[in-house]
Amino acid sequence: MLLDSNLNEVKEGKRISAIGYAVSNKDDKFKPFSFSRHALGDNDILIEILFAGICHSDIHSARSEWHDGIYPMVPGHEIAGRVVAIGKNVTKFKIGDYAGVGCMVNSCGICEACKQSNEQFCENGKTIFTYDCIDCFHDDEPTYGGYSNNIVVSEKFAINVPSDAPLDKVAPLLCAGITTYSPLKFSNVKQGDKVAIAGFGGLGVMAVKYAIQMGAEVYVFARNKNKENIAKKLGVKNLYDNTKNVNERFDLIISTIPTKYDPIDYINLLKNGGEMAIVGLPPVGETIPTDLTRLVFSANKKVYGSLIGGIKETQEMIDFSLKHKIYPETEIISINEINEAYENLTNGKAKFRYVIDMSSLNK
Amino acid sequence: MLLDSNLNEVKEGKRISAIGYAVSNKDDKFKPFSFSRHALGDNDILIEILFAGICHSDIHSARSEWHDGIYPMVPGHEIAGRVVAIGKNVTKFKIGDYAGVGCMVNSCGICEACKQSNEQFCENGKTIFTYDCIDCFHDDEPTYGGYSNNIVVSEKFAINVPSDAPLDKVAPLLCAGITTYSPLKFSNVKQGDKVAIAGFGGLGVMAVKYAIQMGAEVYVFARNKNKENIAKKLGVKNLYDNTKNVNERFDLIISTIPTKYDPIDYINLLKNGGEMAIVGLPPVGETIPTDLTRLVFSANKKVYGSLIGGIKETQEMIDFSLKHKIYPETEIISINEINEAYENLTNGKAKFRYVIDMSSLNK
Repeated sequence: MLLDSNLNEVKEGKRISAIGYAVSNKDDKFKPFSFSRHALGDNDILIEILFAGICHSDIHSARSEWHDGIYPMVPGHEIAGRVVAIGKNVTKFKIGDYAGVGCMVNSCGICEACKQSNEQFCENGKTIFTYDCIDCFHDDEPTYGGYSNNIVVSEKFAINVPSDAPLDKVAPLLCAGITTYSPLKFSNVKQGDKVAIAGFGGLGVMAVKYAIQMGAEVYVFARNKNKENIAKKLGVKNLYDNTKNVNERFDLIISTIPTKYDPIDYINLLKNGGEMAIVGLPPVGETIPTDLTRLVFSANKKVYGSLIGGIKETQEMIDFSLKHKIYPETEIISINEINEAYENLTNGKAKFRYVIDMSSLNK
Repeated sequence: MLLDSNLNEVKEGKRISAIGYAVSNKDDKFKPFSFSRHALGDNDILIEILFAGICHSDIHSARSEWHDGIYPMVPGHEIAGRVVAIGKNVTKFKIGDYAGVGCMVNSCGICEACKQSNEQFCENGKTIFTYDCIDCFHDDEPTYGGYSNNIVVSEKFAINVPSDAPLDKVAPLLCAGITTYSPLKFSNVKQGDKVAIAGFGGLGVMAVKYAIQMGAEVYVFARNKNKENIAKKLGVKNLYDNTKNVNERFDLIISTIPTKYDPIDYINLLKNGGEMAIVGLPPVGETIPTDLTRLVFSANKKVYGSLIGGIKETQEMIDFSLKHKIYPETEIISINEINEAYENLTNGKAKFRYVIDMSSLNK
């Protein structure tokens, strides 16, 4: 068993062998790939990956749509598994615990942002992303993500997951969950606030669930009325299919819209002092152009972008999600189905979040 | 004396005669103009105007640069004078008191925005601007501004000014003061905050003075280093002539920049959770185009526009300014110098805020 050889590697202080699925260039299909990870440091844990979610940004990365990718590339930043070895200084985990890893595996730890646990904004530019990133803390080797059987990570960047948690649901929370939870907390949503979620796909549904749990009165903007029943079942007050003739005024609007639109249409629907958080991005190469002059006349309404969340907040999100049983809708696939999953995601045919069952790797 | 006849008109419940300077079309020069104002209502006060500031937006309005103006037009929304008559229900003023009028003279009073004293955002669209506006509360007659000898206004929209205040300095506070004071309060600036002011003209100087008085550590962005000495004298820590190589990170940046620029250059200089307020507008017909996609990657930084301020806050601003002797730099002119003042403002030759000494009207 590979796991046994991993434990021997740990014992001998050697690099950790790993297998996964990788693409070797931007036009490639995923194929099995053998590689190794850095040796287990004193503050590191070795996680046997049990489930890994597929995020749309994995596709952008694999295809070099945001920047030139580092190949071979093993994507995956929605990782849930079991701790199988720990470094001698590790205190947060013991062997056998469940653990999660999201979008980041390291950062400088000493700048203001890191000290506030906003590691995704490390002011020294040392945020190490889980894959497709050069790891300056480990001899500038590339990082490899979650479509694989294990990962070695500093305990600081691993999330505690209770032993009764549904790991297949926990995995996608580590990106889709934190992305929507974070702006709700950043804008300090409270009981009775009116919150609108624009865009009602995977992220939108998560945002709705969190906002309702936080006591908000929740509204949805969707492209059409198809999903009205789903919205109502979740407790949404109203689903609008456009921004015209909307009489409600909102404390917060979170836009998860993945296409081109005019943010001012939404900003104009905020209460005085209301806020709009943008978490959705338009397709690669497209922009959300707007004229900020119009912000002056639609004054005292704040707009900001939100990008995942820090480690401390990710832990808080996992605890909150498990406590209230807030999970994304998922579809479990085998690792040899990644290529098909990518096609479905690209063609808009995917209904739910794909989660790879990593036990399929050994079959 | 015109004032005596005004008092007779009040006594007889008649419309109030007024004289001022007006343009009769967008290409016209200012000439003397006789007109009348609505009769003194039970909640109104009649103010003898002593000083009126000239705001750059007066020029845009007089020249129909923002929308088709209502002519003849008497601009002026920085008005300071003496109360000469009061309606029978008036409690805020007595005859002889000093009073100020800013950009608004009425609003619905019953919507959420009005109830919160954000009358400039009246949700029923009934904010009545001091000039160049149709007054739905008075038979849809046009409003006339401060380049004149008197004004009749609801006491709710008049600002109390103490009897020892320098009225020529108070007048321009009613627009330039509140425009810069309001975002500092809206962003809750406190002792020790790092605040940067972008654009160091009339508005920028006011913003610097307020921010320093509020205990902030203040920085300035200006097009060049010409005004470095002025900035240092005011207590500014540093003046930058561009956004590159700036190591400081700010809690708040207020942009008073009146030209085209990229807001993201400034947003990137905010601390996590920092805010950027936009109060300056580019020249008519120009925009501040930006791509909000970039906000997502420069996340957790809020940008908003700010538009003057409500009546309650305007009173607070006047009290704060007088207590701490915070005034704009002004140059007093006669009313027959308006045309020249407009030329100087248009050509960028005006050094200070022009304030019309209204005693010149009778000469």
